[in-house]
Amino acid sequence: MKHCFLILSVLLISLSLQAQENLPFGERREIVSPEIHPDNSVTFRLLAPNANSVEVTGDFLTQGRLPLTKDANGIWSCTTGPLPSELYTYSYVVDGLSMNDPNNVYYRRDVASTLNIFLIANGQADLYKVNKVPHGTIAKRWYTSPKNKMDRRITIYTPPGYEKSDANYPVLYLLHGMGGDEEAWMTLGRASQILDNLIAAGKAEPMIVVMPNGNVVQEAAPGESSLGFYKPQFQLPHSMDGTYEESFHEIIEFVDDNYRTIANKSRRAIAGLSMGGFHALHISRFYPNTFDYIGLFSAAINPNQSAQSHVYNNIEGTLLNQRNNGYKLYWIAIGKEDFLYQANEEFRKRLDLIDFTYLYRESDGGHIWRNWRIYLSEFVPMLFK
Amino acid sequence: MKHCFLILSVLLISLSLQAQENLPFGERREIVSPEIHPDNSVTFRLLAPNANSVEVTGDFLTQGRLPLTKDANGIWSCTTGPLPSELYTYSYVVDGLSMNDPNNVYYRRDVASTLNIFLIANGQADLYKVNKVPHGTIAKRWYTSPKNKMDRRITIYTPPGYEKSDANYPVLYLLHGMGGDEEAWMTLGRASQILDNLIAAGKAEPMIVVMPNGNVVQEAAPGESSLGFYKPQFQLPHSMDGTYEESFHEIIEFVDDNYRTIANKSRRAIAGLSMGGFHALHISRFYPNTFDYIGLFSAAINPNQSAQSHVYNNIEGTLLNQRNNGYKLYWIAIGKEDFLYQANEEFRKRLDLIDFTYLYRESDGGHIWRNWRIYLSEFVPMLFK
Repeated sequence: MKHCFLILSVLLISLSLQAQENLPFGERREIVSPEIHPDNSVTFRLLAPNANSVEVTGDFLTQGRLPLTKDANGIWSCTTGPLPSELYTYSYVVDGLSMNDPNNVYYRRDVASTLNIFLIANGQADLYKVNKVPHGTIAKRWYTSPKNKMDRRITIYTPPGYEKSDANYPVLYLLHGMGGDEEAWMTLGRASQILDNLIAAGKAEPMIVVMPNGNVVQEAAPGESSLGFYKPQFQLPHSMDGTYEESFHEIIEFVDDNYRTIANKSRRAIAGLSMGGFHALHISRFYPNTFDYIGLFSAAINPNQSAQSHVYNNIEGTLLNQRNNGYKLYWIAIGKEDFLYQANEEFRKRLDLIDFTYLYRESDGGHIWRNWRIYLSEFVPMLFK
Repeated sequence: MKHCFLILSVLLISLSLQAQENLPFGERREIVSPEIHPDNSVTFRLLAPNANSVEVTGDFLTQGRLPLTKDANGIWSCTTGPLPSELYTYSYVVDGLSMNDPNNVYYRRDVASTLNIFLIANGQADLYKVNKVPHGTIAKRWYTSPKNKMDRRITIYTPPGYEKSDANYPVLYLLHGMGGDEEAWMTLGRASQILDNLIAAGKAEPMIVVMPNGNVVQEAAPGESSLGFYKPQFQLPHSMDGTYEESFHEIIEFVDDNYRTIANKSRRAIAGLSMGGFHALHISRFYPNTFDYIGLFSAAINPNQSAQSHVYNNIEGTLLNQRNNGYKLYWIAIGKEDFLYQANEEFRKRLDLIDFTYLYRESDGGHIWRNWRIYLSEFVPMLFK
């Protein structure tokens, strides 16, 4: 009776195995997948003795799939060449059926899909790692939105030292794209790691980062609202129809009311990706003298033809006002292969015509999270200097 | 150029499909799985035209697996009978290979496994849902642990209204079991939903709930520390050897220093499951006059024979001191089928011998999260009355 610790260990492990009833856990837990080698090559493994074909697919490949081969124990494997530093996603295809890697507990949801992830360090992705640096605090909070008639969930990053400081801080409003929510910049965008690491390196000012939910029909991300667990959809009602922009002041008021902010234009930034870039564009001109720093990451530009909101009246005139009021940085970033490239090119021409200055960053690649993480890591160091 | 919104939608959807390259997303997104029917029966579905056998396994079954049958479109399905209200986990077994449900983006990690989840409402599990009630705030923070020589991550729930109130609040320290971490009570335990719902119903006092990481060798949960993404292990070095108890005062000091707590015994509770119950037992007697409410959920009782820490000296004497100092509630809960049932029975006899009063709750079932959620939902209403 006196020493049930060993019994506990043994029995808990055995219970854990039972909980996995019928899963080949005994063999499975010997398998490491993915295994990242010192030269940044990666070995994928899967125990599937009955399978006829196993392939791996993911954004570490430029195209197609990589076949795995089976050993005498029924373990399939393959090894890539050295990969550039990045946060990658992947999944397996087993006899034509897509599945996650049961040996990898790390994955990300993107709309209605979950994919496994792995990280190749020693480069850009060092910014996406949790490093031994001071860490900010992530809060999941709810604010009341009278205009949208609901309580809504919001993610707020406060920088290291915020709680013990008396200082007031600048604020970056960081907006997600279509299919995203208040989780997206944290899970897919690695925003807290990027901020922690840039601040620790002295490359970014300590700042509050506010990540609201831009889908006005949602209380919260899928699974976090009173709708329970349902299949997420890509496009939601009232997306990009002006409703979000009209109610955005509620978010600013909530933040200025609840955090030690420097509540003026010179210490307020807004940026977003895709639909969030669209929101950053229109919010920053719709609320005059509110933001000194604006970031458009692969931004959608023009409102839906059916959008009747007064937010989209007089776009040219409000841009002129924004120009005349002044701002510190208007940053437009897009990949050469982005389907919104032309729309952004035309927008820049419009801005040129009215002498609206901006900084332009053209990258490789398309409409992908890899670019948005890079854009965030480049944008943040330019803020509040 | 003026109206790229439709183009945006179409192209983003198409990109989203590309991102799913080679996954049968076109068909897959028509599939709803699991589908919960009004009578609380559940239909599982999987598109797997090439499979020879598809089964579902999970804790909604008392044993074995449930076979699915294939229709002409290659969609496998099966429907359960009506299920009792609960949060369930499940996975598929396709031709002997275990896999998650690609149509369900909701899952939970338990040590090194991820399983899909679904919730049957209209009963106990209504406490585990996000309902339209005021919501507390969840913070993921880091505190400095000089004794463990690292910054460590901690989850803190503050109740609805905390930020706008001047009041001080009582604190519940809520501890995870072996294989868990500072995420476990939130993800598997539904602690924030249980607290939100009990507080909204007037059944629980508004309180702060502190969920630390009880594995002293970890900075943070797997994937959230500087170790990066690695395969989680069930048992870690220095588990239950006294190190955590010895350094627990750091956590109390951090909380009292950073939150508006009522920093005395009468407004402090500690509870935990399994290894966390062990920690609650030993911390509550090792720190005299610190906790008026103690909860042992399926608790391990006795220290490892090799544990040399002074924490485990004079257990009988410190229990006597705890008795003499007084407390409001010492609550011991365990399932009839729990492998720790006998150890708890013997512990109760030990307590009886020294007239150490406790409340005893015996439930059905074993060493499972279902019980720990129930215990939490019963324990919390008894606190700070």
